[in-house]
This record gives sequence, structure tokens and C-alpha cells, in this order.
Amino acid sequence: MIEWRDIYKVVTAMVPLYVALGLGYGSVRWWKIFTPEQCEAVNRLVALFIIPFFTFDFTIHTNPYTMNYRFLASDGIAKVITILVLAIWVKFGRKGTYGWSLTCFSLSTLNNTLIVGVPLFYAMYGKWAQDLIVQISVLQAILWFGTLLLGLEIRKAGTMLPSTNIELRNVSCTEESEVKKAEVVEVMEVRIPLKQLLKTVWLRLSRNPNVHVSILGLTLSCIINRWKFELPSVIEGSIQVMSRAGTGCAMFSMGLFMALQEKVIACGLGLTILGMVLRFIVGPTTALLGALVMGLRGNVLRFAIIQAALPQSVTSFIFANEYGLHADVLSTAVIFGTLVSLPVLVAYYVALGLIN
Amino acid sequence: MIEWRDIYKVVTAMVPLYVALGLGYGSVRWWKIFTPEQCEAVNRLVALFIIPFFTFDFTIHTNPYTMNYRFLASDGIAKVITILVLAIWVKFGRKGTYGWSLTCFSLSTLNNTLIVGVPLFYAMYGKWAQDLIVQISVLQAILWFGTLLLGLEIRKAGTMLPSTNIELRNVSCTEESEVKKAEVVEVMEVRIPLKQLLKTVWLRLSRNPNVHVSILGLTLSCIINRWKFELPSVIEGSIQVMSRAGTGCAMFSMGLFMALQEKVIACGLGLTILGMVLRFIVGPTTALLGALVMGLRGNVLRFAIIQAALPQSVTSFIFANEYGLHADVLSTAVIFGTLVSLPVLVAYYVALGLIN
Repeated sequence: MIEWRDIYKVVTAMVPLYVALGLGYGSVRWWKIFTPEQCEAVNRLVALFIIPFFTFDFTIHTNPYTMNYRFLASDGIAKVITILVLAIWVKFGRKGTYGWSLTCFSLSTLNNTLIVGVPLFYAMYGKWAQDLIVQISVLQAILWFGTLLLGLEIRKAGTMLPSTNIELRNVSCTEESEVKKAEVVEVMEVRIPLKQLLKTVWLRLSRNPNVHVSILGLTLSCIINRWKFELPSVIEGSIQVMSRAGTGCAMFSMGLFMALQEKVIACGLGLTILGMVLRFIVGPTTALLGALVMGLRGNVLRFAIIQAALPQSVTSFIFANEYGLHADVLSTAVIFGTLVSLPVLVAYYVALGLIN
Repeated sequence: MIEWRDIYKVVTAMVPLYVALGLGYGSVRWWKIFTPEQCEAVNRLVALFIIPFFTFDFTIHTNPYTMNYRFLASDGIAKVITILVLAIWVKFGRKGTYGWSLTCFSLSTLNNTLIVGVPLFYAMYGKWAQDLIVQISVLQAILWFGTLLLGLEIRKAGTMLPSTNIELRNVSCTEESEVKKAEVVEVMEVRIPLKQLLKTVWLRLSRNPNVHVSILGLTLSCIINRWKFELPSVIEGSIQVMSRAGTGCAMFSMGLFMALQEKVIACGLGLTILGMVLRFIVGPTTALLGALVMGLRGNVLRFAIIQAALPQSVTSFIFANEYGLHADVLSTAVIFGTLVSLPVLVAYYVALGLIN
């Protein structure tokens, strides 16, 4: 049973994140402290230095030999279910398009695991839940962002190779030029070497410092826990001096991102609602399915459902923007999703606490 | 008696600061991640958001009712001795100039109290020493930077009002134009209303957010400790989310500052040595005099001497730059002083540990 003080603890853990976010937003919108180019500098500081140290710090402090493989499997099953449903929708659905299936995959599965998840789950269930969310974040950084990138690269290869077997949809009703057509083109089947695509995906993934630190951190934590030694405190301190800036600076940077968008809702009400439904209802539902398949019970089951309702991953927006695929929808999902996630997460926490 | 593990503890507390500094330096010099304008953005983030929260966080956690007033008085005496000696030098010394007296005051008294001092003294002597350095930082932010600004404003008012009674020095040997003369002009006596100057100083001080948070933090800690209550943890958390970024981001920003300077030593060897002597020898010596006057003993005496050998305050460079007074000397003192301070501080720590 969840008590008031449990809820207070969770709210207490989350409010500071919104304070940092508000400072970032206000520094651009209200106090005019940063120009857009300067915001880019703060984002770089966060993306290239602070977040990698933050990820590394948490990754080396989980024990891979005590990972909850049943939970990780349930998470994998949830994502595979999502992919299967989307594939069926694209193949047989009247409105199913390949591009939208990628966006729906992002919206329903890719979470802001570390920045929001670490303080949240520590407050909700303690250290084991924090460890689980870190394990999920490592898998997400490597496996699931890799999957998304593969999907995006396949789509890009298709649009760049019009001589291959491409099925065009949604184009017949338009009267626009070839150039505009290329923008809305949706790729169904592309016959280019998969090996080459995988290489491109790997190159793109390896440009993300979070992938490096995830792999490095996991390797190091395997070594540390295998031979049971501790890192010298001077190394621990050197990692933490940057890692401690993680939560505050990342949320501040998110505030800058919000302030730079023209509107909070960039993509229209319908798509906003779609994004919220996928994020806060479909995501947790597939997580529940995966958890039931793996027979999860008690707090791990609750954790599995709630972690699927975390705010949208910022990286998923960055990829959408880079590949020119529904960036406005992802931007709205990140902004609006982050703003409304606090009550949603608390509601899930309370509701799941009522169930025995 | 200082043992090896004490020294290891101190080094362990300091090395992470240099790691953050190195990352900042490398991000500009080696990896070309930030342009000079982008560095400015990071500096703004640090100066306007992170450091104020850092200062506020530490200020509200000291108890003003248990302040060590004898130590604070000894620090005040040390600074007054410095001012008196410099005043005599300006009045009677053959080479004494007003401008140089201000710079010497900066070099021998104004320290990087919080960023370097907090982790250092916590490692050396524990919580009481950390509290003392925070108390010193509040006094420095308000009283001693106020004094320096008053001195700088008097000089500026003099150079801007050539009709008042100004004594020119060092100018006769030059053959430069009036404009160049104005740059090296040294003001001895200026007859403009002191009240107006104080107002200007106060306005300038009040533009520094650290002054606001120092006063606000001190007031709040008076209230908290008077009525013995605790801040709600949601407020504590909201302060700490930014404050925790303090050490890492401030040292990173210092690294950016170093990388943007053309040379590590901008002002010639002679002035560099002068700066180091004032910082690491004259400063601690006057601190010792003040401590002897107030009869300090034991670890408080040791603390009083070592805190005077902290690296040069970055704010003192910012003021020097703004008022066009020996900015190159201060820049060198900040950079070179920060780099060499680790061995100097450890040497003081060990040497003073040997004395009973």
C-alpha cells in the first residue's frame, strides 16, 4: 500500500528536475541570457561531457552478474511485440506506412531512462530499481537505438535509391513536384546489401559517446565484479565531478530545447494525443504483456510498467530531426511528455500500489 | 602528525578538479568542440546559474550562530595589514602606484574559496573547516570584493575626471600620445563625492548574483538556525540539483578560460613570479600575523594559513579585465596559480602538520 509519504518522496525527487528545466526555459524566454547559438554550446557540454560521465558512473556501479535477466527479457519481449504489431500494420493496414511505424516504435518504447528514471525509481523502490533502470538504459543505448537507426537507414537508403523496388504511398493524392514527393515517400522494400546498412548504423551509433561509455562501463563493471575490487577513490572522484552535474544540466538543457521551439505543441492536437497515448498507455501495456510472459510479480512487475511510462527519450527526437522523419511529433512528445509525466507516473505508482 | 593516507585523501579530493579543468581545456585546444563564443555561453551558465546555487547551498548550511568570529577577525586583520602596507608603499615608496596597490591587494588576499576550498578543506580537516571556508567566502563576496571595487571605482573616477587634482606618475618617461598616457595614468587623490562612489560600487556589486545569494543565504541560515527548523526536502533538492554541478562545471569553465588565453604566462616571467610570491608567500604570512594577533592555535591556525594559499579568485581577474587594470597579471595568477596550487597546498599541509 502506497502512503502519502511515499508519494511525497517521489514528488520530492521529481520537482528539482522541473526546477532545473524551468531555469533553462526561463533563461532563454524570460531573461534572454542565451542566444540560440549559445544554447547549442550548453547542449554540447551536456551531450559530450556531462551525460557520458553520468551514464558511465551509473553503469560501472551496477553488477552485471546480478542483472535481472527475466526483467530484461520481459522488456525485450515488449519491444518485439511492438515491432510485430507495427510490421503487421504496415503490411496489411490501410493507413500503415513504414515511416510512421518507426515513429510509433520511438513513441511507445524509447524512454528518458537515466535522467528522469534514476532519481524517480530510487525514490519509488530504492537501489534495486535504480540498478534495473540503468541496465535498461545500457540495452536501450546499444540495442534499441541501433534497431531504430537501422530502420531509419533502410528508409533513407530507399529514398536515395529510387531505382530499387520502392512502393510509394500517400503520394497519389498530392500534386507536388518530384522533390516534394521524395520527402513524403515511404519505403516498403529496399534491396540493398544489409551488411552495408549495418555498417552505416554502427558508424552512426559509434558517433554517440553514450554508446562508448555504455560498452566501456559494462566491461569495467564486469571486471570489477568478477575480481571483486574497488576503483581507487581518485578515479571515482574524477568520474563523479562531472557526473554529479548530470541531472541538473541535462534538465536545464531540456529547458533550453523547449524554449527554442516555436510552440510547445508543434504538430497539431491529433498527433499530440497519438503521441501521449502511445507513450503513456500503449508503452506500459506492452510492458505489461512482456512482464506477464516472463511471469514477473510484485514490485518488479510494477517497475516494468512504470518505467515504460517515463518521458520520451531526447535522443529519439535528435534522430528524427537528423533523418527528417516526424521531428515535430517527437519534439512535442519530448516537451509535452516531460511536462505531463510527473502526474502520470505518480498515478501509475499509486494505482499499481493498490493492486496486491 | 600528517600521515600518508591524509595526503592521499587531499590529493584524491583535488585531482578530480584538475580532470574537469583538463576536459575544459582539451575541449577547446585539442578537440575543437567549442568556439570562443560558445565558451562564453558555458561561462554564463556557470556564473549565472551553477555557482550561485553552489554558493547558496553551502551558505544556508553553515550556522551563523556558531561562526568562528576569532578566525574571521584574524582574516580581517590580515587583509587590513595588507592594505596598510600597500598604502604606505603608495604614499612613500619610490615605485608605489595606486593601480599596482590594487593589483597586489587582489593577488595577496582574494582566493578561490568555494570551488577549490570546499573539497580541499573537507578532505584536510573535515566539516568545521569546510564551514569556515564558506564563512570566509561570504565575507569575501560582500566585504572584500566591495573594497576592491571601491578602489577600482576611485581609480576610474580619477582617470575620467582629469580636471580634479590628479597626481601623475610613470608618465614622464613616455613619449606616447594623450590616449596612451590615460591608460597608464595612476590616480592618487581624487576629490569626488565618496557617497556617489559607494553607490556605484553597490550597483556593480549587486550585478553579481553571488552577492545576492550570499546575503540571501546568510539571512536564511540565520532564520533556520534561530528557530531550529529544516528546509523541506523538495527545496533542498531543488537547490542541490544545480549546486551539485558546481565543482565540475566551474573547473571545466576555468579550463575553457585557460584554453582561450594565448599563453599560459601572459605577463612576463618577472610579474608571474611577483604574483606567485604574493599569492603563496605574502598571503599566508599576513594570515599568520592576523592569526597570531587573535591568538589562534592548533588546526584553526593551520587552516588560517593554508586558506590564504588557495588559488587566485577568478572574480578578481574579471574585475581587472573590466576595469583595464593588469588583467594579464591576474589572468596569469589565476591560470598558473591554479596549476601549481596542488603541490603548494599539500606542502603547507604537511609542513604545518609537523609543527606541534
